[in-house]
Amino acid sequence: MGFASPAAFEAALASLPSADADALAAARARQGQLTKPPGSLGRLEDIAVFMAGWQGTARPVIERGRTAIFAGNHGFVAHGVSAFPASVTEAMVTNFEAGGAAINALADAAGLDLRIVALDLDRPTADFTTAPAMDEDECLAALSAGAGVVTPDLQILTVGEMGIGNTTAAAALSARSFGGSVAEWVGPGTGVDSAGLARKVAVIEQALALHHSAPASPFETLRRLGGREIAAIAGAVLKARQLRIPVVLDGFITCAAIAPLAAKVPAITDHCLAGHCSAEPGHVRLLRHLGLSPLLSLGMRLGEGSGAALAVSVIRAALATHAQMATFAEAGVADRL
Amino acid sequence: MGFASPAAFEAALASLPSADADALAAARARQGQLTKPPGSLGRLEDIAVFMAGWQGTARPVIERGRTAIFAGNHGFVAHGVSAFPASVTEAMVTNFEAGGAAINALADAAGLDLRIVALDLDRPTADFTTAPAMDEDECLAALSAGAGVVTPDLQILTVGEMGIGNTTAAAALSARSFGGSVAEWVGPGTGVDSAGLARKVAVIEQALALHHSAPASPFETLRRLGGREIAAIAGAVLKARQLRIPVVLDGFITCAAIAPLAAKVPAITDHCLAGHCSAEPGHVRLLRHLGLSPLLSLGMRLGEGSGAALAVSVIRAALATHAQMATFAEAGVADRL
Repeated sequence: MGFASPAAFEAALASLPSADADALAAARARQGQLTKPPGSLGRLEDIAVFMAGWQGTARPVIERGRTAIFAGNHGFVAHGVSAFPASVTEAMVTNFEAGGAAINALADAAGLDLRIVALDLDRPTADFTTAPAMDEDECLAALSAGAGVVTPDLQILTVGEMGIGNTTAAAALSARSFGGSVAEWVGPGTGVDSAGLARKVAVIEQALALHHSAPASPFETLRRLGGREIAAIAGAVLKARQLRIPVVLDGFITCAAIAPLAAKVPAITDHCLAGHCSAEPGHVRLLRHLGLSPLLSLGMRLGEGSGAALAVSVIRAALATHAQMATFAEAGVADRL
Repeated sequence: MGFASPAAFEAALASLPSADADALAAARARQGQLTKPPGSLGRLEDIAVFMAGWQGTARPVIERGRTAIFAGNHGFVAHGVSAFPASVTEAMVTNFEAGGAAINALADAAGLDLRIVALDLDRPTADFTTAPAMDEDECLAALSAGAGVVTPDLQILTVGEMGIGNTTAAAALSARSFGGSVAEWVGPGTGVDSAGLARKVAVIEQALALHHSAPASPFETLRRLGGREIAAIAGAVLKARQLRIPVVLDGFITCAAIAPLAAKVPAITDHCLAGHCSAEPGHVRLLRHLGLSPLLSLGMRLGEGSGAALAVSVIRAALATHAQMATFAEAGVADRL
């Protein structure tokens, strides 16, 4: 179910399935016959066609959708890069399990099954300024934990995360994957002050320097600069692709989790929608590198998969129009002057 | 229930109620205690506070929401300003009533009661290049038809329209209300070609010249340059304000319907959210004049209240987080380092 070796992970990335061409064509043809001027539903039309292609049917539905939230702790938080203590990761997981967090309300509202996967919270990754964040087995275990939540019955998967400090890891992964100065990728995260921001930049520059000459493979980048929750997201997104399940990404961290994969194989984002554009400044830049245009832009910067779950309501509405609208012929409406 | 005279309409506009200050304060206080970094839910937080203020409760809900779609026909369509014939207005109303249009699917998906109000479709307004579109009684009847769908039990109202050619009326209303060149307000509507676009500009310039020296009151502007469905939207929005019911506006036409009101009384938009930003180019300009920032921007340009209904899913999600999330105290999570 998971990835048994770095080579197995890289092999999966090298042989990605495509969307179903027949379903794409059938959905596009249907869109052209519905009672509206062509293109007038904008991205709702694109969403319906996208979902058709990955579900392999002209009439895609969301009856079985899941939001998977992965949690992990990071060794580098000792450097003071977050406004919150690392203990908040576990406290928030408890909050998720008790139903009290934003993602509980948003997953309910979107009709999504919520899976919380806490990854060795009592065992933070190594400090990436002095060592790889994870050894090979740890990284494979995290990738496989991600893959493990993706079951073939799903019609959509949304991903999210909780991990105090993980915008720092996300910025490091982005810089390593797509270049640019560290400052361009760094932002306030959950609300760090300007001194904290300067510490983030310094910590990331130190980590990038340490791992500079390491192999640039997706696995090695995730292992050295990522974290357990981040590798799990990468594993879930790749597994979903193997099963042709469409994925909704959330904010900066979920996108950074696939940045190392996309730097090598840009087509990894073909089955992904960007749920929203986060207020974290690196996200808009990262979305551009990933070739994704966000569905929502509401100034959210919470993580937890909150923007992705919210976007599912828009996706559901797109599918509702696609499925329920009458054609010009059915309605007896003239389609042109 | 409606507006008995132009003076009654203008008087209502001159004495708008405000949001409930206590409910606003209570909702803001609650937002500050929920288990998330302050502000991290972005506009979802603003929406929850906005809804609290107009519903007059710290915990707003949407159990009784309505989408009202008004349809009307326009005398100026004889000038060839639309890609569709005027008969499509009635055909689409039939489609609405049969459940086959986009708004049927979107109202269902958003859990909204759908009301279709067809306004004398067999009696188009007068051609506004040669006369006022409506006489006083016709305009009052349309305003009152709009007010008539707004019942005190509603917790949210969304508005929409159907009327072949009505982007032309909307551009005229916008230019008359906020100035600027006609070309800045004109766009392709449902898909007119460049010759049609030139005809739109010419028709609007002719109408503006004819009515240039008329009184600049909201009523007179609606009566001379609007249409029945447009006046109905203005009446519905004003009636909702009298009842402190929050309103979600749709695209260019629904916003243009309140432009004459907002030019005189900018606070008319205080109880309004802009559901989306339409692809019709005048809309972004008009939103700026109305002081509204759209919730969604998905390239939609259908009308029918489609963007407003879609936005209700986002509003519902905002209220779900506001109502269901635990406070820091309830969850036992540290709220700061």
